[in-house]
Amino acid sequence: MKKLSIVDIANHLNVSKTTISFILNGRAQEKRIGKDLVERVQKFVDEVGYKPNSLAKSLRTGKSNIIGLMVEDISNPFFASIARLIEDRAYKNGYKIIYCSTDNDTQKTRELISMFRDRHVDGYIIAPPEGIEDDISSLIKDGMPVVLFDRHLPKVNTDFVEIDNLFSTYNATMHLVQQGYKNIAYITFASNQTQMQARLQGYKNALDENGLKPFIQEIVFSQDEELIMAPLSAFLKKHKNLDAVFFGTNHVGTCGLKVINSLGLTVPNDLALVSFDDYDVFKLFSPPVSAIAQPIEAIADSVITVLLNKLNTSSQHISSQSIILKTDFNIRGSSKKAEKAVAK
Amino acid sequence: MKKLSIVDIANHLNVSKTTISFILNGRAQEKRIGKDLVERVQKFVDEVGYKPNSLAKSLRTGKSNIIGLMVEDISNPFFASIARLIEDRAYKNGYKIIYCSTDNDTQKTRELISMFRDRHVDGYIIAPPEGIEDDISSLIKDGMPVVLFDRHLPKVNTDFVEIDNLFSTYNATMHLVQQGYKNIAYITFASNQTQMQARLQGYKNALDENGLKPFIQEIVFSQDEELIMAPLSAFLKKHKNLDAVFFGTNHVGTCGLKVINSLGLTVPNDLALVSFDDYDVFKLFSPPVSAIAQPIEAIADSVITVLLNKLNTSSQHISSQSIILKTDFNIRGSSKKAEKAVAK
Repeated sequence: MKKLSIVDIANHLNVSKTTISFILNGRAQEKRIGKDLVERVQKFVDEVGYKPNSLAKSLRTGKSNIIGLMVEDISNPFFASIARLIEDRAYKNGYKIIYCSTDNDTQKTRELISMFRDRHVDGYIIAPPEGIEDDISSLIKDGMPVVLFDRHLPKVNTDFVEIDNLFSTYNATMHLVQQGYKNIAYITFASNQTQMQARLQGYKNALDENGLKPFIQEIVFSQDEELIMAPLSAFLKKHKNLDAVFFGTNHVGTCGLKVINSLGLTVPNDLALVSFDDYDVFKLFSPPVSAIAQPIEAIADSVITVLLNKLNTSSQHISSQSIILKTDFNIRGSSKKAEKAVAK
Repeated sequence: MKKLSIVDIANHLNVSKTTISFILNGRAQEKRIGKDLVERVQKFVDEVGYKPNSLAKSLRTGKSNIIGLMVEDISNPFFASIARLIEDRAYKNGYKIIYCSTDNDTQKTRELISMFRDRHVDGYIIAPPEGIEDDISSLIKDGMPVVLFDRHLPKVNTDFVEIDNLFSTYNATMHLVQQGYKNIAYITFASNQTQMQARLQGYKNALDENGLKPFIQEIVFSQDEELIMAPLSAFLKKHKNLDAVFFGTNHVGTCGLKVINSLGLTVPNDLALVSFDDYDVFKLFSPPVSAIAQPIEAIADSVITVLLNKLNTSSQHISSQSIILKTDFNIRGSSKKAEKAVAK
C-alpha cells in the first residue's frame, strides 16, 4: 500500500491540508475545528492506515522516537537475540532502535554515548562496561531516560533489568552435587561486572554448603577463540580429578565443548557439564547440555516497558525500578549421574 | 583520564579559547596565529591526548563520521558476525556504525533509511529487501555512498559485495552426488532475492548435469521456529526415498537438525546433510555437518573498504564495483559415503 500523505487525505475529504494537519496533530480544539469533521478525518485515517511523517512529528514533539541500544558484543547470541526483540517491541510502539557494541571498552562507550546525544536519541538502553559510571550519571542528571540491563552499576541509581544470577548458578551447582559430582570446576571470563561476580558467588556458595573444594578458572576475554580455548584446555589437562565443569557464559561453554571434543572426553562419564545461557549449540550437542536459560523475551519486554514508562512520564515522579527475572534450568543428558559417580 | 576540553587547554596555556579552537580546527594560518603558539598548543595536545568533540568536528567538516548499517535480522549469526566485524573495522578508521534490522520489510526499511538521513549518516551499508529499489536509487542520486552486501538489486547500479552463491551450492551438490547420493533434496526459505535464487540454481544445475530429479521445499520464513520445523518435518516424512538433504541457509539448517533429532534419523546413514553457512552448531553436531563457510572477515573488509573509498573520493570518479568472494566448503562426517550408498 502506498503511504498516504496529508495532501491525499485533504483531497479525498475535500478539506484544506492545514485543517487536516491541525486535526492529526491534536490541535483541533485549539483551532476550533468542528467535532464532526475531526471524527470524519479520524475515521478515514483509521480505515486507510495513515502514518505520520517521523521528522515532522519529531519537530512537533521535540522527540526523535529513536532509542539508543548499547550491547557488549552484537556477535554474541545473547545480545543479538535481546537486541532483535527489543527492536521489535520498540518498533511496534513507534520507536526505532539504533544499536552498537561497546566491546566492554570504556572509552568507546563514552564516544558512543556522546554520538547518541548528538543524534538526539530519546532514551538509552545500556549493558554498561565498568568505568562508565560518571558518563551515565551525567546522562541521568540531564534528564535522559536510561535503563541498564544484564548487569548494573552499584554506584549509579537508575533502572535496571537483570536476572537472578546468584540463585541460577547456586541451583545448577546443587544439581551437580545431587547427581554425585564432587570435583566441580567453574570456568568463566575474568570480570568485575555485577552479573559475573554474582554467578561466581552462587557456585561458591553451593560448594561451601557441601564442604566441597572450588576449582575456578578465570580466562581473559579475547576476540580470538584460540586464546580462550588454550587456557581452558590447559586447565582441564592440569586438573585430572575433575568430574564436572560449569561454564559461566555461553561463549565459554561453546569454546569448552570444542576443547572437550578435541580432548576426546566423553560427557558425562569423563566430565559432566552445565552451562550458563541456553542456545542451539547446547541443545544439539550429544548428549544435550544442561543449561540455564535466560528469559530473553521477558528481559526485552521489561527493558522496553521500563524505558517507555520513563519516556511517557515526567521522570521526577517515578523512582527507579530494579527488575530481577527468574531463569529456567533445563536439565539434559550432560549432567546425568555418571556411572563412576553412581558406583561410589 | 578525564577528557580534556578546549577550556582546559586554554587555561593551562593561558591563551583564549577562541584561539585554541582556531588552532585545533586548522584555521591558525587563516587567523594569522603565530607558529610558535601553534606548536606550543600542538605539543601540549599531543602530550595530554585531547580528542576533538565529534559534533564540533562534524559541523566543521559537514561529516558525521557515522555509517548506517542495515542487516536483515541481527539475531541471525551471519548478520551478527558481519555487523560486529564491520563495526570493528569502521571504528579503527574513525567511523562509528549504527545498525538496525530491516526484517526484510520494505516499509520498515524505508522508514529506517529516512531515519538515517535525518541523523546525517555519511554512508549506507545495506542488505536490501526486495521492493526498496526506488529508495536506494534516490539515495544514490543524492550523492550518498551506498554499498549493498549479501545480495544485490539487479535494477540498481551501485557497489555490492557478495559471495559466489551459485558455484557454492553447485559444488556441494556435486560432492553429494560423488559420495553416491541420488535423491538429494534442497530445503530453503521462499525468496526472490538474488543470493537465494543463485543458491537454488546451483543445486538444480548439479542435479541436471547428473540426470537426477530435484526435490525442493521452499518454506515461508517465520520468527516462530515451530512454523519452520513443521513443514520441514512434513516434507521429510513425505519423501521417504530421500538419501541426502541440502539446507539453503544456516537458519534452515539449525531447524533441520532439530527435526532430524526429533525424527530419530541417523546421519549420514538415513540421511546425509550439507548446509549453507558454517557455524558452531554444525561443527559441534555429531557427526559434524559439512558446510559452506562464507568468508565473513573478507566480506566485512570488502564492504568497509569499498565504502571508505567512496567516502574519501568524489563519487563521480569511481564507477561501481561488484565484489564476488569465494566460499570454503568444509567436508565433514555428515556427507560421508553412506553404507547403503556404498552397497549400491
